[in-house]
Amino acid sequence: MGRISVDVYPLQIGVSLREVTSFGKYLGGSATNVAVAAARHGRASAVITRTGEDPFGEFLHDALRGFGVDDRHVSAVPGLPTPVVFCEIFPPDDFPLYFYGRDPAPDLVIRTEELDLDAVRDADVFWATVTGLSREPSRTATLDALRARGRRGTTVLDLDYRPMFWESREEARRWVREALPHVDVAVGNLDECDTAVGEREPRAAAAALHAAGVRLAVVKQGPAGVLASETTPDGGTREVVVPPVPVEVVNGLGAGDAFGGALCHALLSGWDLERSMRFCNAAGSIVAGRLACADAMPTSDEVDAMLKEAVGA
Amino acid sequence: MGRISVDVYPLQIGVSLREVTSFGKYLGGSATNVAVAAARHGRASAVITRTGEDPFGEFLHDALRGFGVDDRHVSAVPGLPTPVVFCEIFPPDDFPLYFYGRDPAPDLVIRTEELDLDAVRDADVFWATVTGLSREPSRTATLDALRARGRRGTTVLDLDYRPMFWESREEARRWVREALPHVDVAVGNLDECDTAVGEREPRAAAAALHAAGVRLAVVKQGPAGVLASETTPDGGTREVVVPPVPVEVVNGLGAGDAFGGALCHALLSGWDLERSMRFCNAAGSIVAGRLACADAMPTSDEVDAMLKEAVGA
Repeated sequence: MGRISVDVYPLQIGVSLREVTSFGKYLGGSATNVAVAAARHGRASAVITRTGEDPFGEFLHDALRGFGVDDRHVSAVPGLPTPVVFCEIFPPDDFPLYFYGRDPAPDLVIRTEELDLDAVRDADVFWATVTGLSREPSRTATLDALRARGRRGTTVLDLDYRPMFWESREEARRWVREALPHVDVAVGNLDECDTAVGEREPRAAAAALHAAGVRLAVVKQGPAGVLASETTPDGGTREVVVPPVPVEVVNGLGAGDAFGGALCHALLSGWDLERSMRFCNAAGSIVAGRLACADAMPTSDEVDAMLKEAVGA
Repeated sequence: MGRISVDVYPLQIGVSLREVTSFGKYLGGSATNVAVAAARHGRASAVITRTGEDPFGEFLHDALRGFGVDDRHVSAVPGLPTPVVFCEIFPPDDFPLYFYGRDPAPDLVIRTEELDLDAVRDADVFWATVTGLSREPSRTATLDALRARGRRGTTVLDLDYRPMFWESREEARRWVREALPHVDVAVGNLDECDTAVGEREPRAAAAALHAAGVRLAVVKQGPAGVLASETTPDGGTREVVVPPVPVEVVNGLGAGDAFGGALCHALLSGWDLERSMRFCNAAGSIVAGRLACADAMPTSDEVDAMLKEAVGA
């Protein structure tokens, strides 16, 4: 449940929007990319979001169906344009985004009364995002969806924090704290953990997330790898730190969503922490090494091949 | 003085934004296109407008300089994105536009205190647009610029009326009426004349524009050609109706701006009404027969060649 957009991405790498001469058109938006990534692993996935009532919105339906993602919970908001995102691709680590049509975005006009709460409740994994909490009526709808889950299955909150969508980090923190008691799994980088629970030291962040009710905290530390910490039945915690899978980065955008889709697959597969994190890291690396985002999401076989290769190296 | 944007236009013709797969990037915005068109006729031209403070804004400066248009009166508005426009190209007569980043657009944040009123006063032709009247502070700045002219040289108001930029047609009419007493030349189609003076019958519209103080009224009647009506020193009027120059339309966008740039050239050349209108019509037809807008503006030689060809046909 969350963001969707048309990503209008340069067909040239390493040049700014000042110099780029042509663009391609892609399905995008973090939550939507996660749904696509999960579908690539063979999972039945759907996304709850909204588009404009325009040809770009129709394209997004086409693209979702093309990726095998159920679009029945995607509706149009009359009078708002479908959001568009431009990016610049400066490998290995600079990928600025330029958002258009998010004032407000249709995906922030999701209303509780339009939610299919049975479908929300019945999903084995439900994925929501902090961006969905940034504005009403989406904020209330997201919190209502989390509450409707009633701790059935696995509920994931992507701690994605984009300052331009918020008045302040404190405002974001307030609403993340409201959401966390309904969440089993939280995923974020160190800055996002700071927003969520006021901690940017990885173990302190994981501990704070556990204290807020989260069973599994996944803290992305960049080159230092991923720290995953889960609570154990005896009231303790178990953690792993898994290093990144080396890759020549082409476009870092979408790597986090590939990680997210792989995480859904890992959770549904019941894998242990280490296997799960290695799989997620490899899925993220594959997408970072490709130009596209949604179009680049790997199958499980591709991830397994990448893992074998990394072990062999 | 008026609108500027990055036009992100499909590289495929006859398909909707649902189906298009790639885009090109072009300088756009009506007033800016007129400045480019005038420069192509060898005229020294400049545009007063504003961009976002971003790479797209830098591109617009590059493009203006590339077309020989003075960009010294183009400044950046911090915190606002440079507007982007998508279009669909369905020849011969359907070219929907999709505006992004106009809430507000930087070109509607033009302020009187930032205007170089000496430059405004000294221009032999000054071109303003109704869109510039749609929102403050641009509305006051546009009216102040018109007043500063003090009837020196020739002042043109492009009656361009885009409903999405206005709360109502009546609101637009109110501000056009405020502007007209400072205007020598008004240009618009029948719907725009209705907005301006409440008349959609061509001769009645021209008469109403004259009554409001306009010396030359240029009323575009589509397939019926252009009606141009000017007042004479004895208190009468002189008019011509010039038929369109036949062309196989590829992309109608930009044709009106080509007409506008040609009109600036004609006014500066002191040509009579008929010669002026034939020249403007031919310039518009040339651009309608080409895919691009700003990049397609013809030189005077190209217009003359088109006119010879049309006579020969």
